[in-house]
Amino acid sequence: MKTKILLALCIAAVSATAFAEMKPEDKITYRQSGFTFMRWNMGMIKDRVIDNPQNYDKEKVVAAANLIAATANSGIETLFSPDTEKGKGWKDTRVKSEFFKQPDEVKKRVTDFNREANELAKVASDGDIASIKSQFDKLQKTCKACHDDFRTKD
Amino acid sequence: MKTKILLALCIAAVSATAFAEMKPEDKITYRQSGFTFMRWNMGMIKDRVIDNPQNYDKEKVVAAANLIAATANSGIETLFSPDTEKGKGWKDTRVKSEFFKQPDEVKKRVTDFNREANELAKVASDGDIASIKSQFDKLQKTCKACHDDFRTKD
Repeated sequence: MKTKILLALCIAAVSATAFAEMKPEDKITYRQSGFTFMRWNMGMIKDRVIDNPQNYDKEKVVAAANLIAATANSGIETLFSPDTEKGKGWKDTRVKSEFFKQPDEVKKRVTDFNREANELAKVASDGDIASIKSQFDKLQKTCKACHDDFRTKD
Repeated sequence: MKTKILLALCIAAVSATAFAEMKPEDKITYRQSGFTFMRWNMGMIKDRVIDNPQNYDKEKVVAAANLIAATANSGIETLFSPDTEKGKGWKDTRVKSEFFKQPDEVKKRVTDFNREANELAKVASDGDIASIKSQFDKLQKTCKACHDDFRTKD
């Protein structure tokens, strides 16, 4: 019985390791994917609210805003562990070394981004185009602030 | 004035085209990214509910389930247009040609997947581990069904 319990604990420990101790290239792949799919959803809102409001479709805009908020809330920032400073996911990482030297500033930026993303999901569900437009702008500013300071240029 | 209106209409048309008439490789990149980031979130639930329930963390499981549901609801299936049957996003597409020949069956599978993903978000928010486990299993079956029939092996 003791052996069985020990074995179960070992299996649990190994499994925990499998997810928690992910390879740096896998973490980079996942975060690049998360941000890329979020960009498609940002594009959806830009298309239907900013560029072509005549094509406004509440259901699509709400779905896109929910995806953006869910990505912000997913803990995607935990994929930026120190072992991922350099490396390649499905493309070379563009994160600057400054990112890893300013954890407090990064934390602040993540908080800003999450707050604005959750607010966008809220206003999208309310359905007032002017508010969605203004909140989308606020969200984009938090994206840009981080890109300007912590991401290398293309 | 007429010229101005015409110009505005042209700009709107061009912008609409930019998002709607995306290049096949961009569509493939976006869908690969969406499914990949969703996999990370599936892994989070597997880790904290199935493999290591002693590490169950309601907030993290809810966040992961919301991301999965938001991806399902995002319209990711629209990224599988006929022009994306072959091609490369950030890796070669693995979708089989059968996928494009059976639109009704695909639609059914998408409906199944979305229903189970939304139900997972619901039970995750209720917080009963046994229900999350059973619903996660149901969701995985809808993933597997599609992969088995419509995706080439690794």
